[in-house]
Amino acid sequence: MRPLADKARIITSIGAGPIGGGWAAFFLARGFKVQAYIHSMEEERMFRSIIDTAWPCLESIGLAPGATRDNLMITDDLAVAVRDTDFVQESAPERLEIKQALYKHLGELVPEGVVIASSTSGLTMTEIQAECSTPERTVVGHPFNPPYLLPLVEVVGGVATSDDALDWVMEFYRHAGKEPLRLKKEIPGFIATRLQEALWREALHMVANGEASPEDIDRALRFGPAPRMAIQGQCMAFHVACGEGGMATNLDQFGPALKLPWTRLEAPELTRELRDAMVDGCNAMAGDQSFEEMAAERDRRIVAVIKACRD
Amino acid sequence: MRPLADKARIITSIGAGPIGGGWAAFFLARGFKVQAYIHSMEEERMFRSIIDTAWPCLESIGLAPGATRDNLMITDDLAVAVRDTDFVQESAPERLEIKQALYKHLGELVPEGVVIASSTSGLTMTEIQAECSTPERTVVGHPFNPPYLLPLVEVVGGVATSDDALDWVMEFYRHAGKEPLRLKKEIPGFIATRLQEALWREALHMVANGEASPEDIDRALRFGPAPRMAIQGQCMAFHVACGEGGMATNLDQFGPALKLPWTRLEAPELTRELRDAMVDGCNAMAGDQSFEEMAAERDRRIVAVIKACRD
Repeated sequence: MRPLADKARIITSIGAGPIGGGWAAFFLARGFKVQAYIHSMEEERMFRSIIDTAWPCLESIGLAPGATRDNLMITDDLAVAVRDTDFVQESAPERLEIKQALYKHLGELVPEGVVIASSTSGLTMTEIQAECSTPERTVVGHPFNPPYLLPLVEVVGGVATSDDALDWVMEFYRHAGKEPLRLKKEIPGFIATRLQEALWREALHMVANGEASPEDIDRALRFGPAPRMAIQGQCMAFHVACGEGGMATNLDQFGPALKLPWTRLEAPELTRELRDAMVDGCNAMAGDQSFEEMAAERDRRIVAVIKACRD
Repeated sequence: MRPLADKARIITSIGAGPIGGGWAAFFLARGFKVQAYIHSMEEERMFRSIIDTAWPCLESIGLAPGATRDNLMITDDLAVAVRDTDFVQESAPERLEIKQALYKHLGELVPEGVVIASSTSGLTMTEIQAECSTPERTVVGHPFNPPYLLPLVEVVGGVATSDDALDWVMEFYRHAGKEPLRLKKEIPGFIATRLQEALWREALHMVANGEASPEDIDRALRFGPAPRMAIQGQCMAFHVACGEGGMATNLDQFGPALKLPWTRLEAPELTRELRDAMVDGCNAMAGDQSFEEMAAERDRRIVAVIKACRD
């Protein structure tokens, strides 16, 4: 039976790779009991080494009370891994036929109502849940590598997923210490990966055209926009960079620059609706902070990030 | 006359806006004497407030010996601003006719051989230097906002720029404490802005299509890829994420995923040459570090960045 989101205690983690191992390490550090399913006990050593490698970092961030690696149970029996479980995080190989077969089993084995989340980065839950007899409790919960450190989890359901399951998993991830982001639509690549993929393709184009080396690209990001992006994202970075006028100034003034050949990505049509959505969104995020307060806060944090990168 | 790059002492900063003011603050903090040109003395108060706002951050990073805001001279007389100068950093408004007229003057006023660098983000030096009588010493030196904190400066010449001037300015910026990046070609948007622009256009498309809000985009970046990008860039982030196999595994395994509709940016053709350029570039950056060492280093630094973002 599905527990209250803040009462979940036993987590099933499926998969012996860096994502499955990373999730197991994360949940152990947050004080949960973890029942890990690996495909073969021959993978146990590698799986444990992922957790042992992650542990010192998790300790330095701060363990939850009672957190210990002794709370880990490892099995190659799926039925044992999901016994009495409160939540399943699935990180099996990224192939549709494997995931579909797995969800067919999980749909019957996992206790009634318990939510099953997939770490998939490239498949949709509508595809994955196609052969599952209880698809209403299956969701995407896509982490970022390394999953024991980066807080983001992108959450979205398939056509057969219930709102209940989505509400529950958002609350559960938040309670567990993650930063879940609920998608409005089931789009390929979700949000963060799409943004990263646009940047990545532009980078590949530049290398292909002899315009930059991989090292140029990494240095450009590390010493340029990335430290600011880690603190403000991109919308608020532009909002604050434009002073009092904020995002409205950015779009009204630099809107025409969208048509310049500054990337191989085609420009979106800057309609009135899009402009207003951007401006309203940034104003909402800014709340009652003044431009000066936000700029000062940005600078203070960039200094901290620069120092952190330097050490 | 052009001094040795590590002997420059007097800097001319042109422009009263956030970029001109930011550069002035940076050079003062690094112990230089700064002769600032502003268009009208009515802008003096705003200009000084940019420097005063930046100063506490610069202090917390650490001032150079002898650095003081008393080393600042402000004038609305261009000839006075460039008198005896060792280097000119120009941050005038981003309009071609203004820059061209300015470089016509600077070409005659600035002491012989002294390098003139433009903060332009959108124009090319080939265009800017068109009416300058001494174009061989004019270069682009494009900073990232805020220029007193983010270390990146993108450097590229126009058709008439000499290699000497480019060599000098690379050494000068490095000596001054910046991270200059010399571009192989004069491409629109340079490197960092192109990467950021690809990501930005994808973000605007998502908002336009109701797939994400500005807040979703910022949260996705801040809690997902950005902290890692601040440390590793994007090439090394993928190289290290793929374990022993590195970038070769990434491209050979996920190459076909480039064709997936994960962004509106068209995929580059993944030729053998491109693959090898990416793999060789990452291997060169990795040097003799093992995958485990790099992953451990990444994690240690992500923890520091996450703590820095949190405080």
